[in-house]
Amino acid sequence: MSFTESRARGLVLFVVVLVALGCAASETPRAKEPSAGDELEAAVDPLPSWNNTATKAKIIAFVDAVTDPDRPEYVEPEERIATFDNDGTLWVEKPAYAELLFALDRVKSLAQVHPEWKSQEPFRAVLEGNLDAFVAAGRRGVIEVLMASHTGMSAALFNTIATEWIRDARHPELEKPYTELAYQPQIELLRYLEANGFSTFIVSGGTVEFLRTFADPTYGIPPERVIGSSVETRYEVQGGKPSLLRVPEVDFVNDKGGKPVGIHKRIGRRPILAFGNSDGDFEMLEYTTLGSAGVRLGLLLHHDDAEREYAYDRESKVGTLDRALDAASGAGWVVVSMKNDWNTVFVEE
Amino acid sequence: MSFTESRARGLVLFVVVLVALGCAASETPRAKEPSAGDELEAAVDPLPSWNNTATKAKIIAFVDAVTDPDRPEYVEPEERIATFDNDGTLWVEKPAYAELLFALDRVKSLAQVHPEWKSQEPFRAVLEGNLDAFVAAGRRGVIEVLMASHTGMSAALFNTIATEWIRDARHPELEKPYTELAYQPQIELLRYLEANGFSTFIVSGGTVEFLRTFADPTYGIPPERVIGSSVETRYEVQGGKPSLLRVPEVDFVNDKGGKPVGIHKRIGRRPILAFGNSDGDFEMLEYTTLGSAGVRLGLLLHHDDAEREYAYDRESKVGTLDRALDAASGAGWVVVSMKNDWNTVFVEE
Repeated sequence: MSFTESRARGLVLFVVVLVALGCAASETPRAKEPSAGDELEAAVDPLPSWNNTATKAKIIAFVDAVTDPDRPEYVEPEERIATFDNDGTLWVEKPAYAELLFALDRVKSLAQVHPEWKSQEPFRAVLEGNLDAFVAAGRRGVIEVLMASHTGMSAALFNTIATEWIRDARHPELEKPYTELAYQPQIELLRYLEANGFSTFIVSGGTVEFLRTFADPTYGIPPERVIGSSVETRYEVQGGKPSLLRVPEVDFVNDKGGKPVGIHKRIGRRPILAFGNSDGDFEMLEYTTLGSAGVRLGLLLHHDDAEREYAYDRESKVGTLDRALDAASGAGWVVVSMKNDWNTVFVEE
Repeated sequence: MSFTESRARGLVLFVVVLVALGCAASETPRAKEPSAGDELEAAVDPLPSWNNTATKAKIIAFVDAVTDPDRPEYVEPEERIATFDNDGTLWVEKPAYAELLFALDRVKSLAQVHPEWKSQEPFRAVLEGNLDAFVAAGRRGVIEVLMASHTGMSAALFNTIATEWIRDARHPELEKPYTELAYQPQIELLRYLEANGFSTFIVSGGTVEFLRTFADPTYGIPPERVIGSSVETRYEVQGGKPSLLRVPEVDFVNDKGGKPVGIHKRIGRRPILAFGNSDGDFEMLEYTTLGSAGVRLGLLLHHDDAEREYAYDRESKVGTLDRALDAASGAGWVVVSMKNDWNTVFVEE
């Protein structure tokens, strides 16, 4: 097993909750086809789960600007790249990232073939449900648990295991499958952008194969438009079939400064819209908007809705939103208030 | 500088020429819409640069089978992934890969700021035009030249340098720009597949950023559908602008067993069609066809046309086709004869 700690920044995920900040807003919406009449406009609102606030108006104004060939802000369709973080941006990330809970569950399942784990940290802490001790083991402990749960098997077997977990797992507090904890307004936004010629991508610190097990059924984002962290992988032929063996080494960490690198290597174009919710998305939003010649849109989802979801930002260890929140107004990033800008949070079953 | 020699298999590229093998073939074509009448069929032949041989018939029969919802071989559009090698499959690779010639030219340009290279191998050999000595320096020498020519600058600057080289360089023997040495039959095949709902990808041992400078204008393959080798890259903000610094370390070698890994990480689906021309494509074809439940198509371009292009296979150091040629008939791979199956080789200007 290899520990590439310096490459693993941002993979450390804990369990905390925090406070809220409000974001007042109010505004009239803008419809795409003013000639169609008010009733029809209302009927075809592409973002019905978004309240008619300044936030929604900014999103629609941006899309109108970059898709109108007569305007100077026009962007050719192939350059309309929109990147979305996953945890905390497309679905719930509190009290802990789903992928971490998956990893902890896997350690418990694998413990019977690893009797040595009973006396070996960080596994002992995980098996005893002692999350404080697990957290105390630090990054190295998290990487060990991720490698034990994510590697040493074929990509096909990992896919089966992760798919079954996603199907069966329930959020520890909201008691629903994770796939029902995707945000309805964001799914509307993805479809709205795609209908306007955008290519949408998930750009997450999570591992790419884990993300792919739910990205298409949950968000309608196919595997080739999912960018994530990855483990080393080796091609082999086993039993007359091609196999991709997952090796216990970190290959790439797609978080913080890794997000622009992942975007560049995978897409090869700079996004014109990026949507995140934490300091892990700072560089992705910066890469998207800073020093660009054209109009660009950076968006930060602010979790300020303790009633319907969670309220947290600066002090939270999961999804810390501090540096990016400070930078938002200077950078022109739009802070989306879950409380005020969304009339619906979760997808309808 | 870091030398990851074991990861650099397949990056060793030399300068040799070789012999030919013929591939007889003859057959009638198949049109997609038999009801449309012979004249119309002939008028809409999607592959006019392909002779009406058994090879063409097999390609069309495969596309017909996987796109017809009433047939058991039907494949949903999102699973219709087609992967193409670049050098020797989409354009000329003899007498040396274009990217190696680019690297050698870069070393010559950079020599004025590297006076030490005059006495330092492999640079001395390159500067003196002594390719035998360069070859004698082996893999490490090639990696050194690739790192010197490809890194230590931003991705944006590399893009500019490589784009200018592609624009200005001439093939050393055929005396044309490389972009005019793309194969017309392959461009027709790419468009034909796309018209039938396929997603086409380039999967090359070349570096992804170099490939992208010509893939879209030359083949109509956009950056996000180019998979290649890569160097380590670091995100930085320089002079108030986001920048991606290319670091002199090999990140990923997308050749041989690396091709299935690259395909898996980037696309996340197994191709149903793969087209290569050398042993470096063996694993990609194997991954595509071996042990698959459905109908799959592996294709190997056989360079047997010394008159119009080059003739080489088993003994060639560039584009060696030996193991894959032996495996072709057992694996059901179609060996495409440039001489017999193509009535046109190069794109029309």
